[in-house]
Amino acid sequence: MGLYDRKPPTPEEYLAYRTRFSNWGRWGDDDELGTLNFVTPDVRRAAAGLVTQGRTVSLSRPVDTHAGPQNPYPAQHMASLGTAGGLADYIGLFFHGFAQTHIDALSHIPTHDGRFYNGRPIGAATGQIALPEGMACGVEHWRGGIVTRGVLYDVPRLRGTRFVAEGAPVHGWELRDAAAAQRVEPRSGDVVCIRSGRDEWFSAHPGAKNWSVPAGVHASVCEFLHETEAAALCWDMLDAPEADQGLPNPLPIEIPVHVHCITIPYMGLPLIDNADFRELAATCAELGRYEFQLVTAPLVIEGGTGSPVNPIAVF
Amino acid sequence: MGLYDRKPPTPEEYLAYRTRFSNWGRWGDDDELGTLNFVTPDVRRAAAGLVTQGRTVSLSRPVDTHAGPQNPYPAQHMASLGTAGGLADYIGLFFHGFAQTHIDALSHIPTHDGRFYNGRPIGAATGQIALPEGMACGVEHWRGGIVTRGVLYDVPRLRGTRFVAEGAPVHGWELRDAAAAQRVEPRSGDVVCIRSGRDEWFSAHPGAKNWSVPAGVHASVCEFLHETEAAALCWDMLDAPEADQGLPNPLPIEIPVHVHCITIPYMGLPLIDNADFRELAATCAELGRYEFQLVTAPLVIEGGTGSPVNPIAVF
Amino acid sequence: MGLYDRKPPTPEEYLAYRTRFSNWGRWGDDDELGTLNFVTPDVRRAAAGLVTQGRTVSLSRPVDTHAGPQNPYPAQHMASLGTAGGLADYIGLFFHGFAQTHIDALSHIPTHDGRFYNGRPIGAATGQIALPEGMACGVEHWRGGIVTRGVLYDVPRLRGTRFVAEGAPVHGWELRDAAAAQRVEPRSGDVVCIRSGRDEWFSAHPGAKNWSVPAGVHASVCEFLHETEAAALCWDMLDAPEADQGLPNPLPIEIPVHVHCITIPYMGLPLIDNADFRELAATCAELGRYEFQLVTAPLVIEGGTGSPVNPIAVF
Amino acid sequence: MGLYDRKPPTPEEYLAYRTRFSNWGRWGDDDELGTLNFVTPDVRRAAAGLVTQGRTVSLSRPVDTHAGPQNPYPAQHMASLGTAGGLADYIGLFFHGFAQTHIDALSHIPTHDGRFYNGRPIGAATGQIALPEGMACGVEHWRGGIVTRGVLYDVPRLRGTRFVAEGAPVHGWELRDAAAAQRVEPRSGDVVCIRSGRDEWFSAHPGAKNWSVPAGVHASVCEFLHETEAAALCWDMLDAPEADQGLPNPLPIEIPVHVHCITIPYMGLPLIDNADFRELAATCAELGRYEFQLVTAPLVIEGGTGSPVNPIAVF
Repeated sequence: MGLYDRKPPTPEEYLAYRTRFSNWGRWGDDDELGTLNFVTPDVRRAAAGLVTQGRTVSLSRPVDTHAGPQNPYPAQHMASLGTAGGLADYIGLFFHGFAQTHIDALSHIPTHDGRFYNGRPIGAATGQIALPEGMACGVEHWRGGIVTRGVLYDVPRLRGTRFVAEGAPVHGWELRDAAAAQRVEPRSGDVVCIRSGRDEWFSAHPGAKNWSVPAGVHASVCEFLHETEAAALCWDMLDAPEADQGLPNPLPIEIPVHVHCITIPYMGLPLIDNADFRELAATCAELGRYEFQLVTAPLVIEGGTGSPVNPIAVF
Repeated sequence: MGLYDRKPPTPEEYLAYRTRFSNWGRWGDDDELGTLNFVTPDVRRAAAGLVTQGRTVSLSRPVDTHAGPQNPYPAQHMASLGTAGGLADYIGLFFHGFAQTHIDALSHIPTHDGRFYNGRPIGAATGQIALPEGMACGVEHWRGGIVTRGVLYDVPRLRGTRFVAEGAPVHGWELRDAAAAQRVEPRSGDVVCIRSGRDEWFSAHPGAKNWSVPAGVHASVCEFLHETEAAALCWDMLDAPEADQGLPNPLPIEIPVHVHCITIPYMGLPLIDNADFRELAATCAELGRYEFQLVTAPLVIEGGTGSPVNPIAVF
Repeated sequence: MGLYDRKPPTPEEYLAYRTRFSNWGRWGDDDELGTLNFVTPDVRRAAAGLVTQGRTVSLSRPVDTHAGPQNPYPAQHMASLGTAGGLADYIGLFFHGFAQTHIDALSHIPTHDGRFYNGRPIGAATGQIALPEGMACGVEHWRGGIVTRGVLYDVPRLRGTRFVAEGAPVHGWELRDAAAAQRVEPRSGDVVCIRSGRDEWFSAHPGAKNWSVPAGVHASVCEFLHETEAAALCWDMLDAPEADQGLPNPLPIEIPVHVHCITIPYMGLPLIDNADFRELAATCAELGRYEFQLVTAPLVIEGGTGSPVNPIAVF
Repeated sequence: MGLYDRKPPTPEEYLAYRTRFSNWGRWGDDDELGTLNFVTPDVRRAAAGLVTQGRTVSLSRPVDTHAGPQNPYPAQHMASLGTAGGLADYIGLFFHGFAQTHIDALSHIPTHDGRFYNGRPIGAATGQIALPEGMACGVEHWRGGIVTRGVLYDVPRLRGTRFVAEGAPVHGWELRDAAAAQRVEPRSGDVVCIRSGRDEWFSAHPGAKNWSVPAGVHASVCEFLHETEAAALCWDMLDAPEADQGLPNPLPIEIPVHVHCITIPYMGLPLIDNADFRELAATCAELGRYEFQLVTAPLVIEGGTGSPVNPIAVF
């Protein structure tokens, strides 16, 4: 098994993730929470117990209103003009993609054969998007927020590099290594925060033209997430490119989604994309602790395939 | 003093609130946090200690995409069409007003003589909106979130009614009464949650045509907020109408803003408008406790006069 | 035949409109123009010859930014805030419905069995909207504009009423009557402008709660449009309600679409909805002529199911 | 005089344009039409007489929904999701800038001392935009459309080049040369269409990074527009860069606006920016005629500083 022999999955093993790590039916046929079920009252209580410094850190990037290679669909911050109806401050955003910090709902990505997590039916589809039928798997099911322990896995720190580079994706077993190095025990209900050093990568590559992230996380982390019963994954660099995966992209699109396509539809595991871990990593290093209470509260968007969020770590 | 003799302010006393409750300069000339300064590490630690059940409750209404008397500028939930650039799920909203749960930044309302909290200059103004100069008082200054104790003041419960009705606004001394009845001591750094029974009012008045709330909170609560060193105010029904205030509206607009116009520009106190307290009130009643950890994380909107939020109470 | 015996179609006759008035294949298998093919160079030349006064009249309502019963999805007129990317003046609108003056492209409504005009395939569908495959039937195919003769059929004038009322829809044979009364001969390539007196109806019914128009045009006009080889239909009050049609609504929705569902997918005839005919009717009456050059230029929206327009009549 | 001695204006002469070419008061103190007053009934009649082929050509670029160096604020083409209120097809755009074909209203640019055309007061201003007071100078005043003669001045054809290049801006006297070469007499009420070969320039410079156009029209054309009593200017490449003007930019912004800042606030002359002249130039060359009826119909946006348009040339 990959996590123990430190081998990435073969294409066949990767395909088998769909059943091996599936949580369909685990929490009932009507379940909409997926791996958020791991966040039990006990887990929440224990997480609150981590608040010893009384200090907070945001994991959110600013809402980005400027177009660029990483932000082809900029957010809008506007106000009404003249006598037009409207109120101060309109904020509008395509929150998916690689610019805005956001959470993916379980309706964001269907299975390869066209259903959502837990077998929920897809209502309709356009070229861009599949819609759940009867609001299944919408982000509003998570209106109660994700309040649990967060653990930062600081991969560049473990590796002694500034960032995860092309050709060297983050593997599941490295998270075990990082946990050991950081003296933290993975626990059921954690939000796993994988730092790859996104901002450091872009600082080192001014003028980068890529839309998606240039490097990142290998599908082998799915095994780690499954085995440790992670509640959610929060990351700055997302899925590593196809070349780094050594696996065909599961969707016929240019953006690598090797992790997305297992975690969302099969595991029922929320992803918090495009986090900014700079202040978090500095705080963890300063305090010598890599666990904290983490609170993420999606906007209550009925039928939403996600939401912009500002996750807050409390130390 | 109104809070102790249970008398609402005269127009002169109300005007004097501007200086009497002002926090300008209290935390330095560059301060952008206002009363969030009351949320100290100690306060955060103590708040985390309230997490004993490990249970969460959202205080947010769903994002409302349907026009109506209370929602003249409906939010938009859209997706790109055809080959148009864009990604799954665009969410856009005028978050101010009476429909969406949102936080007001200190740049939302200037003083009567045209400055923002702490004397920050206004850069420009249109008919609808004043803009801060150099991004002063924008909501992005609160990116670290508001993580502190919340206390629910359940006024209808105290009064033995279903909702706060026209002609009987919530007064500051009632909050003291409610605190006593609920056996909770107001403390520095609290988010004061005033329940007036908004949803119950609208249920009892189908077909209501009013945009703003029909009843609500009297300016006399400002004294309570000041004296108890509240960090923020979270409410479901907002400022009571002019007739209930017995005070001229401080702005030449139809919407009553007697509380807004003291708390935001003079006290530097954030408002969390249009909360849904139904589940919170039920939970407090069930558990027999009216205090909890409260986490509110605004989106990081640079220069934003506020943000949609989903405040989470943790018991 | 209804047009001559002045009888509205039976349900069976109405169903037969689909084949009787179909233009599929008439102008080739790849045709995207539909009845705009009737606008030949000769027709355009003759229309230009109608410009004798050198006077122009707009048929457009103002873009409506205020929500109300007739405008549940108000347009937006906004500007960027602070340092947000963006330029002066953002205009955004759901142009379909009953508020904005707009043109319907042939991709706006499919046939009852799921194809667009001329047999073009539908690519995908959501609850709200069907999308053409490969940009078939998009409004961009009409980028050259509609430049032809317009003829106003002033039905209230003919009837001696202020507006077309409930229970008395406009029938095809009345257009013949109106033509005779106005001494104008219907010609191939005309834009048929049917005035029902929309603004007068709403003036007479303040506080009207209906979203769709309360009265209007009967399906029997389809025969007139077909026989006279109309290029397009421009109207202020749209399809009469189901009760006035005496025919089941062809779509399972509350909005009557008896004319839309024949003209768009089967005839391939563009509709210009929600015109304002007040100034046009006054001008025609003043000048004693009911024909004019009419220019309608849709925005070039690739894959658009229509466009806001400002049709201009030139006398 | 520059037009006759073929000399560009000195900085002093350019400043003097503000009074020399001013039309303030020319058509009354309340005038909102500016140079559209030159479009008299006679002018419209004569223009209609140019329709001899019965052929139409669009001068509009497609609405551009994709971000890029020339389109940092892409238009949006969207549809409602799930049960969200909304109708098929939302189109939203920042129409100003260098991507969308649009018309500038007289409220788009104020004078150097803060008034609009004809002395109209500015109501308020933000960093991005000045707003007229009481809806003065809004685009809705032009709801009747611009229906007149258009004349194409095909500068690259005159020069024997593919496009107007950097360092060689279009001068006023070249328009006289082009008129002579094309055997067309400039007349009062014309829409002057200056082709610089925008699409040809960008084809020759793949990967161009500039937002604004790289070359274009010199301020010296203002004299031509004034002397010939042009009603409007329609162009593909807009104001030439500062280096080509040899004049300081009249506004403290990076985008050259030497022509804009004279024509809009002082002359009261509408600009139709970002035209696509490829088909028009080909048609003119094919037919050997450079004049045609031109119809431009702005959307009726109250208080709008412009509108997207699809100008139609009719031959």
